Amino acid sequence: MPTEIPENSVGIVTPQVYSFDEPLKLRSGQELPAYDLMVETYGTLNEDASNAVLICHALSGDHHAAGYHSSEDKKPGWWDSAIGPGKPIDTNRFFVVALNNLGGCAGSTGPTSINPATGKPYGSDFPIFCVRDWVNSQARLADRLGIQKWAAVVGGSLGGMQALRWSIQYPERVAHCVVIASAPKLTTQNIAFNEVARQAIVKDPEFHDGYYLEKDTIPKGGLMQARMLGHITYLSDDGMALKFGRDLKSGKLNFNYDSEFEIESYLRYQGERFSGQFDANTYLLMTKALDYFDPAAAFDNNLAECLKQAQCKYMVMSFSTDWRFSPKRSEEIVNALMEADKDVSYVEIESDKGHDAFLLPIPRYMQVFDAFMNRVASNQGLI
Amino acid sequence: MPTEIPENSVGIVTPQVYSFDEPLKLRSGQELPAYDLMVETYGTLNEDASNAVLICHALSGDHHAAGYHSSEDKKPGWWDSAIGPGKPIDTNRFFVVALNNLGGCAGSTGPTSINPATGKPYGSDFPIFCVRDWVNSQARLADRLGIQKWAAVVGGSLGGMQALRWSIQYPERVAHCVVIASAPKLTTQNIAFNEVARQAIVKDPEFHDGYYLEKDTIPKGGLMQARMLGHITYLSDDGMALKFGRDLKSGKLNFNYDSEFEIESYLRYQGERFSGQFDANTYLLMTKALDYFDPAAAFDNNLAECLKQAQCKYMVMSFSTDWRFSPKRSEEIVNALMEADKDVSYVEIESDKGHDAFLLPIPRYMQVFDAFMNRVASNQGLI
Repeated sequence: MPTEIPENSVGIVTPQVYSFDEPLKLRSGQELPAYDLMVETYGTLNEDASNAVLICHALSGDHHAAGYHSSEDKKPGWWDSAIGPGKPIDTNRFFVVALNNLGGCAGSTGPTSINPATGKPYGSDFPIFCVRDWVNSQARLADRLGIQKWAAVVGGSLGGMQALRWSIQYPERVAHCVVIASAPKLTTQNIAFNEVARQAIVKDPEFHDGYYLEKDTIPKGGLMQARMLGHITYLSDDGMALKFGRDLKSGKLNFNYDSEFEIESYLRYQGERFSGQFDANTYLLMTKALDYFDPAAAFDNNLAECLKQAQCKYMVMSFSTDWRFSPKRSEEIVNALMEADKDVSYVEIESDKGHDAFLLPIPRYMQVFDAFMNRVASNQGLI
Repeated sequence: MPTEIPENSVGIVTPQVYSFDEPLKLRSGQELPAYDLMVETYGTLNEDASNAVLICHALSGDHHAAGYHSSEDKKPGWWDSAIGPGKPIDTNRFFVVALNNLGGCAGSTGPTSINPATGKPYGSDFPIFCVRDWVNSQARLADRLGIQKWAAVVGGSLGGMQALRWSIQYPERVAHCVVIASAPKLTTQNIAFNEVARQAIVKDPEFHDGYYLEKDTIPKGGLMQARMLGHITYLSDDGMALKFGRDLKSGKLNFNYDSEFEIESYLRYQGERFSGQFDANTYLLMTKALDYFDPAAAFDNNLAECLKQAQCKYMVMSFSTDWRFSPKRSEEIVNALMEADKDVSYVEIESDKGHDAFLLPIPRYMQVFDAFMNRVASNQGLI
């Protein structure tokens, strides 16, 4: 944490566990008998519960979206740039709810949790989740919190898919939907990258068919490789070139297989760090949820037909050099929304930061985001 | 092989080993005391040796560029579409030389060869090669074959880098240079992908620091992953979408970690097959040669200055959906050649086949290639 909490920070926050006993029926046909959700909230829910904003996280995100957990924290939550007093998701106005998705590894029930049926960590026995399952679990959380209708459901990347899914799954419970750097479904190439990442994990001899915790080990190498690969797809070609170019770590070529180029040691560092913090089974599960997401499939692949159910207003944003979920993919959503006669705003933000841009405080992005959230506040009678 | 050898095939060919006793000094400072090159030739060298064409191979290529090794062969050499009687590299006119590069695993001296110093396979002790080292070894092969000057040096991808290097390293020995789907140096992103592939290999517990053959094993899993990743970068996003889309193997989702989408099983199959045929240390070495290639570096990063040394005529070709070595990268070469006042033709071929397109008999590509090789034949007084 900085020496003093910045004025536009939500400050010190304490996550809270919400337990649910009613079984959750999943798309796969499986069932989760009971589960915990790890949740953070910022701001205050108003009397008619009309100011609640749900934050949906991406692959490696969690419930800690803003503020600090303690005065020792070096970094704030993952979306602190967008959430806080005076920020686009203004906690002076909105009651913000962020949670760790089921299947995650930051406190909500997931593969590292104890399976009540066996007394051991779930591991590979944890059921595979689809985006719709998360939305259902989030709807129960909304019930618990007394939120009948979200002022907005907001998410980037995989989080954007959840926001989109909310708008068609519970149309009467979403007033506004913000879909950032996302896609209506993965491309073949996206699935291919996910598959290579998964293979890196499951082929790690420390994976033990997913029951690595029972063996007191983790598939660190495989997860590191998966993250290194992921990281390449989060950055833009140009951004990487600007940041690292062909710079050499020691200033000269060494003609060996140690990391020689700066980009190599950067990726190894990122992979190494991530593999010590994140759960491999959660990584697998998150990539599968990404692969499966395809709401138009049930509508004969007609996305506009699918979106006709929605009742909310939409904001869609993309980033010029994002090649994981390119602006073209956002435009597919926007075109379908227009065809479905929905209220939609769309902005493509100029940035050299690739997919990662959605997490960064890019001025134009924050400005556009802020303007839309002002509309949300106004539509909800908050200002 | 087809039941009958097609008329436009070079037919049954027999590779030949050429042994060299003079030590080869390498860019790294290391030295290869003696080595073998595995070579195939097609057509007949004319009296004044003015019709010789050198084929340089890419990452996983070898000396078997055209024809069949036996009547049992199911497939011809890797560039049979371009080499043969009446084909762009017309063996009725040209004497074509194809070799397996040093460090390879198809017969030329490489990591799987016996190190005379130890009596065991070289493994990780095989020196790291740069493109210039290959060019030097190829120059010695030219000497041995009595070829003072190549009518053309031709290559795609990493092969294109060798062709480009030939033109500046031995300017007086190259009349024409054909650089296909290549680049003047790798981008940061290219290096990043190579690094992930290398990590997959070296982190495989069967890698044993590169001395896996001594342990009677191979790092099959790592090499499979490396190839799966490579394969994604060889195909275009659009091409993948057209070929596989989001098609499911069993027609429905199974909600498990087996391969569900067609693209997953395709990549697994490609990776599996490759990992049983190719040497992991060779893969590492080839990716390093790619990373290191940067001929302009010695010219203050001025590619035009670097290319001023050249004396040959150039043909540069790229493919519209190639994102591994995009048309933009070929244009960098073309622009530098023009700035250096060289004779250069450039064509970008429309194709949805990505980087792989350079190996395919795309009509427009073959037509342009053929026209340039006609010019070569005419300039060399062959027609």
